[in-house]
Amino acid sequence: MIYITRRESFNAAHKLAREDWSLDKNTEVYGKCANPNWHGHNYQLYVTVKGEVNPETGFLVDLKWLKQLINVNVIDKVDHKNLNIDVDFMQGKLASTENLAIAIWDILKPLIAESDAELHSIKLYETENNFVEYLG
Amino acid sequence: MIYITRRESFNAAHKLAREDWSLDKNTEVYGKCANPNWHGHNYQLYVTVKGEVNPETGFLVDLKWLKQLINVNVIDKVDHKNLNIDVDFMQGKLASTENLAIAIWDILKPLIAESDAELHSIKLYETENNFVEYLG
Amino acid sequence: MIYITRRESFNAAHKLAREDWSLDKNTEVYGKCANPNWHGHNYQLYVTVKGEVNPETGFLVDLKWLKQLINVNVIDKVDHKNLNIDVDFMQGKLASTENLAIAIWDILKPLIAESDAELHSIKLYETENNFVEYLG
Amino acid sequence: MIYITRRESFNAAHKLAREDWSLDKNTEVYGKCANPNWHGHNYQLYVTVKGEVNPETGFLVDLKWLKQLINVNVIDKVDHKNLNIDVDFMQGKLASTENLAIAIWDILKPLIAESDAELHSIKLYETENNFVEYLG
Amino acid sequence: MIYITRRESFNAAHKLAREDWSLDKNTEVYGKCANPNWHGHNYQLYVTVKGEVNPETGFLVDLKWLKQLINVNVIDKVDHKNLNIDVDFMQGKLASTENLAIAIWDILKPLIAESDAELHSIKLYETENNFVEYLG
Amino acid sequence: MIYITRRESFNAAHKLAREDWSLDKNTEVYGKCANPNWHGHNYQLYVTVKGEVNPETGFLVDLKWLKQLINVNVIDKVDHKNLNIDVDFMQGKLASTENLAIAIWDILKPLIAESDAELHSIKLYETENNFVEYLG
Repeated sequence: MIYITRRESFNAAHKLAREDWSLDKNTEVYGKCANPNWHGHNYQLYVTVKGEVNPETGFLVDLKWLKQLINVNVIDKVDHKNLNIDVDFMQGKLASTENLAIAIWDILKPLIAESDAELHSIKLYETENNFVEYLG
Repeated sequence: MIYITRRESFNAAHKLAREDWSLDKNTEVYGKCANPNWHGHNYQLYVTVKGEVNPETGFLVDLKWLKQLINVNVIDKVDHKNLNIDVDFMQGKLASTENLAIAIWDILKPLIAESDAELHSIKLYETENNFVEYLG
Repeated sequence: MIYITRRESFNAAHKLAREDWSLDKNTEVYGKCANPNWHGHNYQLYVTVKGEVNPETGFLVDLKWLKQLINVNVIDKVDHKNLNIDVDFMQGKLASTENLAIAIWDILKPLIAESDAELHSIKLYETENNFVEYLG
Repeated sequence: MIYITRRESFNAAHKLAREDWSLDKNTEVYGKCANPNWHGHNYQLYVTVKGEVNPETGFLVDLKWLKQLINVNVIDKVDHKNLNIDVDFMQGKLASTENLAIAIWDILKPLIAESDAELHSIKLYETENNFVEYLG
Repeated sequence: MIYITRRESFNAAHKLAREDWSLDKNTEVYGKCANPNWHGHNYQLYVTVKGEVNPETGFLVDLKWLKQLINVNVIDKVDHKNLNIDVDFMQGKLASTENLAIAIWDILKPLIAESDAELHSIKLYETENNFVEYLG
Repeated sequence: MIYITRRESFNAAHKLAREDWSLDKNTEVYGKCANPNWHGHNYQLYVTVKGEVNPETGFLVDLKWLKQLINVNVIDKVDHKNLNIDVDFMQGKLASTENLAIAIWDILKPLIAESDAELHSIKLYETENNFVEYLG
């Protein structure tokens, strides 16, 4: 069993606010992250897959394939986007790093399962001081 | 003459778009940065001041003072904000890294001039791949 | 189950030396780390907690709360301090990164247990080349 | 149980190509990594060992010892070398990051077992965007 | 006058060796960098341009244009290549970081001069510990 | 004219305090940096030299020589040391980053002048947020 990780980045706007709560209530819970005019981040996404090394190629997976899979199915949908408004898979969810990591897992899990590898974890940095890891 | 630099960070939303241009024209010029629903970044700001070391204290400036000056006059106004909407000193300007760096220079230059040091440069990272430096 | 990590930093002096050993013996075991006049580091502390995402808030824990908990109970006690002399929870222990990580675990474990999350790991960087991880 | 990690670096040339495949076939599978005239990387190697803290020394292992063990047995054999040609333990293997990480594990596992610690993982960065982890 | 910088990366093999010197002489001068079977690096290239902000666009230069210019004229010619063998603009030159930075300057200087900006500097990292800067 | 930079690191203890001032006065001026029991840092030192590329070697300077020069004359004297007590060239000076950078300049300037290169700048990071640059 070996683990291989690919890092990709995206830049997005978001806010932390429930639509069914008042601005006061959202500010009480989410602080400055509830700013109604949005703020944003340079997110860093680490996708880790696991499996056996293919003795024919010496690879677990082809990283060009993994890079393209992540870009087409995740990065293109969130990069230079508003996570609350523009991103179909975040509709109806609070745009927290936790929920975003879980949503990315749900997208990539079945797609990677079609290869010889298996998705192991999604690690998502919101800033250099805060990050989330999800293992399913 | 010695140079001392303090790094601070802020997270903000913005878009690159002129209000007097159509979405098509803005997209032609600014690409995905013109997304009308905003995107955002973790900005890193490096403020460099220069001057002589004070022989009494061994300091050019007190970094606690410089840190507070930058936070009160810049960071508190841009962190978790929308650069186009929320920031008084960016009103009427395109929210490019260039214009933001120049605006920060204009704010800090006279304030630092009240100390024994002089503002030397504003360096502003939008991403780890893109940054601007302004020396007045 | 999701994992969320907060990074904090502190700058401290220490030495590696047992009081019941001679300087020669300490130098034999700990090398230049036994310098009786101390040396120091910029430590980086990563605190990882785990649990379920709260469906009401979209959060595992409020990072503002976690940040303050770490600062009040750990950082304020070690930052700009001498680990051997000034830090109550390191009294009578060798000031190794291993012992420091375990002591921080012992402090934070019960405090985080009062929230809906659970402490998962303490990761402590002494330099960019050396770090320790403790999972209890 | 505590985990301690030491980072070391090396700079090496390699190519991804099977000798029993044509250049066309190798290029089809490995892309530009199959360039017959080689390319290269600054590899970063993280060696993590685990065990109990020795109550006499406060150490899991002496990092000076671990550093030297890694340098003599791995770094000196790969640094400023061609992984395909110059490295005895990579002979007959495709020079992928996966295979290199496994080979380093096989070298270090028995050597570290002679101490009170046990090898836990080999993490090998080929670039800042791609890395492999092997846990045996 | 404002300065804007774009970072790009490439992975290449090289050796430091004069063809008119013996291996002994090359090893005496260049040490392990003279390994006849090559070694390699992850190079990081910082291209800094300077000029006035265009009041119509708020840009000094369009970074998408600068990124493409660097990629087509430099990165595509050196990435996953052997600097000594594969790179036309390094023929007949020792493949030192100094010579590579100067060659990249000579390529980009006239191309950037066709825009409203001017090339200011080429900064080239061979490792995180060694880099060269060239200002013409 | 080309510039080449070598990075080295050292770990040291220090405090900011004048011996002719009371603890109260030192704390008023230097804050927590005046802790009488010391604190410490992982310092990062960047030494930049400038000159012409030697057409025979393709080098400005031999980085192995520069590395050894910095290590013998600076790093060996400050690494794992107390800057206030153990370091001859800091005696009688406040151990600020400014004074330390200037002292390192004064040591290296004449030594580098014996080569074909000239010292251009000393850049010294005390933390990732604070650094000093001195150009003589």
